[in-house]
Amino acid sequence: MISPSKRTNQVSQTEDRRPKTEDGSSKKRLSSADRPPAAGRADLPRPLCGIIPPMVTPLRDRDTLDEAGLERLLEHILAGGVHGLFILGTTGEAPSLSYRLRQELIERTCRQVNGRLPVLVGITDTAFVESVRIAGMAAEAGAAAVVLAPPYYFAASQKELLEYLGHLVPQLPLPLFLYNAPTHTKVVYEVETVRRAAELPAIVGLKDSSANMIYFQRLLTQFRDRSDFTLLVGPEELLGECTLLGGCGGVSGGANLYPQLYVQLYEAARSRDLDRLAVLQQQIMRISNGIYCLGSSGSSYLRGLKCALSILGICDDFLAEPFQRFEPPERALVAQALRGVGLLDGPEAQPCRSKP
Amino acid sequence: MISPSKRTNQVSQTEDRRPKTEDGSSKKRLSSADRPPAAGRADLPRPLCGIIPPMVTPLRDRDTLDEAGLERLLEHILAGGVHGLFILGTTGEAPSLSYRLRQELIERTCRQVNGRLPVLVGITDTAFVESVRIAGMAAEAGAAAVVLAPPYYFAASQKELLEYLGHLVPQLPLPLFLYNAPTHTKVVYEVETVRRAAELPAIVGLKDSSANMIYFQRLLTQFRDRSDFTLLVGPEELLGECTLLGGCGGVSGGANLYPQLYVQLYEAARSRDLDRLAVLQQQIMRISNGIYCLGSSGSSYLRGLKCALSILGICDDFLAEPFQRFEPPERALVAQALRGVGLLDGPEAQPCRSKP
Amino acid sequence: MISPSKRTNQVSQTEDRRPKTEDGSSKKRLSSADRPPAAGRADLPRPLCGIIPPMVTPLRDRDTLDEAGLERLLEHILAGGVHGLFILGTTGEAPSLSYRLRQELIERTCRQVNGRLPVLVGITDTAFVESVRIAGMAAEAGAAAVVLAPPYYFAASQKELLEYLGHLVPQLPLPLFLYNAPTHTKVVYEVETVRRAAELPAIVGLKDSSANMIYFQRLLTQFRDRSDFTLLVGPEELLGECTLLGGCGGVSGGANLYPQLYVQLYEAARSRDLDRLAVLQQQIMRISNGIYCLGSSGSSYLRGLKCALSILGICDDFLAEPFQRFEPPERALVAQALRGVGLLDGPEAQPCRSKP
Amino acid sequence: MISPSKRTNQVSQTEDRRPKTEDGSSKKRLSSADRPPAAGRADLPRPLCGIIPPMVTPLRDRDTLDEAGLERLLEHILAGGVHGLFILGTTGEAPSLSYRLRQELIERTCRQVNGRLPVLVGITDTAFVESVRIAGMAAEAGAAAVVLAPPYYFAASQKELLEYLGHLVPQLPLPLFLYNAPTHTKVVYEVETVRRAAELPAIVGLKDSSANMIYFQRLLTQFRDRSDFTLLVGPEELLGECTLLGGCGGVSGGANLYPQLYVQLYEAARSRDLDRLAVLQQQIMRISNGIYCLGSSGSSYLRGLKCALSILGICDDFLAEPFQRFEPPERALVAQALRGVGLLDGPEAQPCRSKP
Repeated sequence: MISPSKRTNQVSQTEDRRPKTEDGSSKKRLSSADRPPAAGRADLPRPLCGIIPPMVTPLRDRDTLDEAGLERLLEHILAGGVHGLFILGTTGEAPSLSYRLRQELIERTCRQVNGRLPVLVGITDTAFVESVRIAGMAAEAGAAAVVLAPPYYFAASQKELLEYLGHLVPQLPLPLFLYNAPTHTKVVYEVETVRRAAELPAIVGLKDSSANMIYFQRLLTQFRDRSDFTLLVGPEELLGECTLLGGCGGVSGGANLYPQLYVQLYEAARSRDLDRLAVLQQQIMRISNGIYCLGSSGSSYLRGLKCALSILGICDDFLAEPFQRFEPPERALVAQALRGVGLLDGPEAQPCRSKP
Repeated sequence: MISPSKRTNQVSQTEDRRPKTEDGSSKKRLSSADRPPAAGRADLPRPLCGIIPPMVTPLRDRDTLDEAGLERLLEHILAGGVHGLFILGTTGEAPSLSYRLRQELIERTCRQVNGRLPVLVGITDTAFVESVRIAGMAAEAGAAAVVLAPPYYFAASQKELLEYLGHLVPQLPLPLFLYNAPTHTKVVYEVETVRRAAELPAIVGLKDSSANMIYFQRLLTQFRDRSDFTLLVGPEELLGECTLLGGCGGVSGGANLYPQLYVQLYEAARSRDLDRLAVLQQQIMRISNGIYCLGSSGSSYLRGLKCALSILGICDDFLAEPFQRFEPPERALVAQALRGVGLLDGPEAQPCRSKP
Repeated sequence: MISPSKRTNQVSQTEDRRPKTEDGSSKKRLSSADRPPAAGRADLPRPLCGIIPPMVTPLRDRDTLDEAGLERLLEHILAGGVHGLFILGTTGEAPSLSYRLRQELIERTCRQVNGRLPVLVGITDTAFVESVRIAGMAAEAGAAAVVLAPPYYFAASQKELLEYLGHLVPQLPLPLFLYNAPTHTKVVYEVETVRRAAELPAIVGLKDSSANMIYFQRLLTQFRDRSDFTLLVGPEELLGECTLLGGCGGVSGGANLYPQLYVQLYEAARSRDLDRLAVLQQQIMRISNGIYCLGSSGSSYLRGLKCALSILGICDDFLAEPFQRFEPPERALVAQALRGVGLLDGPEAQPCRSKP
Repeated sequence: MISPSKRTNQVSQTEDRRPKTEDGSSKKRLSSADRPPAAGRADLPRPLCGIIPPMVTPLRDRDTLDEAGLERLLEHILAGGVHGLFILGTTGEAPSLSYRLRQELIERTCRQVNGRLPVLVGITDTAFVESVRIAGMAAEAGAAAVVLAPPYYFAASQKELLEYLGHLVPQLPLPLFLYNAPTHTKVVYEVETVRRAAELPAIVGLKDSSANMIYFQRLLTQFRDRSDFTLLVGPEELLGECTLLGGCGGVSGGANLYPQLYVQLYEAARSRDLDRLAVLQQQIMRISNGIYCLGSSGSSYLRGLKCALSILGICDDFLAEPFQRFEPPERALVAQALRGVGLLDGPEAQPCRSKP
């Protein structure tokens, strides 16, 4: 990790906020660790616009990465023309993964991406110290930024959230995106809290997964004059409208599956091609209705998405506890939905999955 | 960890469920680790009755134990005649602590307790693997049992909860108490789920912190014929009635502060001395109203309890993020409440706290 | 409405609380009404202790009372030795009934009861004016008190609740019980709000249906020195413990069905006969588990209770929208539960119900 | 009620939906009523597109209409070029008003509107019978349709909701809009429920106030091929995007205050003039942030909106319980916000309000 004095100088400018990898300032730690050299790191655009898929974590078992699946998934996503990658978010099942596996995933991902686009790493945790630790891993591996939802066991007040951010942010070696995810965390980053937190230069944006568009509209209004501040939307069903309205793009789970579609929709929204947007939106709603809404609501999105990736031969559909992969009946429905959006021809050939 | 075949034999009897410390079966792991010999281990009564304080975690900083405070706190609690000790629960701020510190706390606590009473260790986690890991630390250190609330980021369905328990329990080296804490986890262990989970012999009891007494009454009815199954209540305001009605006792936070009071109330309830119970209940309500209800609701219990312990010179009042210690005005109110229940004479002499 | 002097004897400070008609009395309104003379009115004890069943409203159709069923139900309840009667509460489906039918029910009930015990009438409404109007009907018919949960469409703050009570109470011609029912109203009467509201002399008690016993304990502590203030508990599963702990008794739905059982449990609790209490509690849990928990949770209590009354030949099981009576499979389970508690011998003979 | 033949022209499939009186007509009831002749009735377009303001109910006291204010408000709204009018919704404080006053409001409004645009009347109620009764008043007065949120005391399941609608709709004399308002009713009309309910020909549309745009997108997808089915959005902050995406328009509270602005924004969205939309959206956000967000959240929208209307001299700012009008400090902030959007020049001249 870089020295405090150095970091202090750096927070005012984005490009300096990361640990150095070329001038040797962080080499010492790298070399002392028994690890491969850090991967290339992509610059973090300010704002960060486009499609930043929240990557699924391919697993063969609850503590074993599906390594081949990860490689395929990464190349599949990158081939789709996306603008960034977000690992260890909700879609990545981060809270369900061991820290060891999280580290492995960070390192493998950054190495394979190798600077082709900025990698964002989720550091949300109930423990301050663990968030800092993962952020360190991310910086060392070559990630471009970190992403943080509120601590999710104890429900902090807005005042407590601001104090928490005030303590945490100076300890982070990378720029930070806030992540509003009240369904999972019970706590909202209220607009006024975001406004005040954004006075910290290291906080460069926010991803909103609340699906509450009044909230998002208030954020757009609040940050109207901060062209460098990134506002991204989580739910892909809202990607089009958020982009049309002035948002920077989306962290769209379906871009694991069909990255081109989300990139095209983003581009249609940016170019204000409303007719094309409407056509593409229908495809996205077909994915949402056909793949994410089967079975019990809490886990259906994750189960459906991993199931679809497995059917397409990209990666395993193992889910970390407390969730379980779909059974054959739901799997057949997912396959049918994939046919409906043109991602699957004929029968599912080779199921990509570990032994049940 | 003991071998599966051994564990299979052991789950039918409590005393065999732990890794051996005397016959050498787990010495290998102990000796290979660079750690002091395991402490004595107390037997786990079936059921476990009485007062099992959920120990506060004394901190000097967010990742530094207040070691002297921990020693004082432990002896203070044990001197009060309690019947067990629960560390790394909600009151222990477990989710806010690093894993390193959790391990240190487990080891220090078990070593100091040294078999004087059974130590229960919270292993609640969003990550299956980390729960197993902490359970391993607990077993190695000499704990008597572990305690588990549902994973608290993703909200599992009851079916998913049962599958999760079905996978997890066989990997635990110690008997397990379920922990119903819906305010923090968003998920309830429904009565039917508890009934089915309790068919696993390693699940030996449940602690309920819901404050919903219909739920507790249903549990009492459900386990009427399972005299070995422990039902404990979390909120100390309900300790008296739960014990009167047939519950086994309580995991009462105030027993960090005033263990004798809770033990006396428990005994009054057991001996059905309703007049004495009423008098003691008033003391407990004074603590509850005077110390736990100041300031914003989410954190007021924890802040008040640590503040009171600090005023009494027992341990530091530092709280791990996302919470902060009380400021002087609230501290003065806590001191006043302590005087009201006879725990403090005159002014606060020596504040026990780290630098703000 | 009875004359002021009569009521004055009963509730000393309430006589000025009613709006006067222009000539300073309420005679005019009474004489102009084309109604039978008011029924006898029972004194309202202060506090009101014992079992006060929340009466089911027997219906033949959504706007038609089951008149014969109402007569049978009233005599069945009164024969059980209860201490009061609460009509138009949640169990009485009040919000689902037309105002015309509510008025008819108030008048018929009061006439038939004819002063044999105090009748409490629910006046909870989203509209201030309608609450006052129903309270007027209640007073005129001979009710002893009215009962009020917070307005339940708009969620008022505690400050707004106090203002609302400050405006409403002076317009009520009868003493008032507050009714805490957050599941249905979204709003809690917080303890401090109750404390301040209880400074209004016309507010004579509170019924708590929250099932949160910490809340109830705080109320008991708050009103320890107000021996005239009535604290009743809603859920019958908690009747025993609340009475043991110093509460006044319960508003127990099951007392529609088996009033003796609830009276006996109340008496066992008052006489601190814990062994007998435990036996009776088991009966109450059998009713709760066997009759109130079938099918979807929102309506299962009401459907089960009405179904049981129908099976026993007491009244029709028609439910006002948005609920529907049980189908035969659930009805068979209810019959089985009634056999389990000794209320039904052999098969169900004569179903008491309107045509489906 | 207008004659069947008249209504038949307006809403082709509704003529048989009303309960017939015994002689097969409804003339008898009309002649027996001591009321002025029904007002003109506007046709109900299918779908209904544009701005349909949810009218504030001007009050001088809790049961007294501000008649002059109502006249001014209606002409103010109609002069703004809106496309319909919705009375007795949430913004109209319907649940807080007596039935007598609701009837008076329906009659006065319809008479004054006199067919200039379609009037929609809220009939949401916890009591089936009262909903039918208000619908009858609405039909008789010349309203074009009625609007219904789920019953809001008891939380119905989706199955129960469908049964409820199946019973209620045949008794309604006018076409029906569903109203999704989960904040107030606790219950959502799920998309599948709406799909099935919409098979009833009398159900012609839905207004969504959930602010959950995933839900709205799913509805848009569901009703893509039902060009006659109206989908309107409640929160005005979302009017632009919902209209852009294919919704029919909005039920915008701010259109009480500044109807032209909402009409212009609607037109900009329909003509896909995104630049103009962005400018107008800023005005709407200024109103939202400056007027609706002062003070406690539950009532701030209603208090702010009525306060603004009072400042502009349009109508009284009295609110029915459980809410209270703003005090001078908030009033000054509202005035400032009105200046900010160009609705107020200089100081507030003549406060339009009843005595406090």
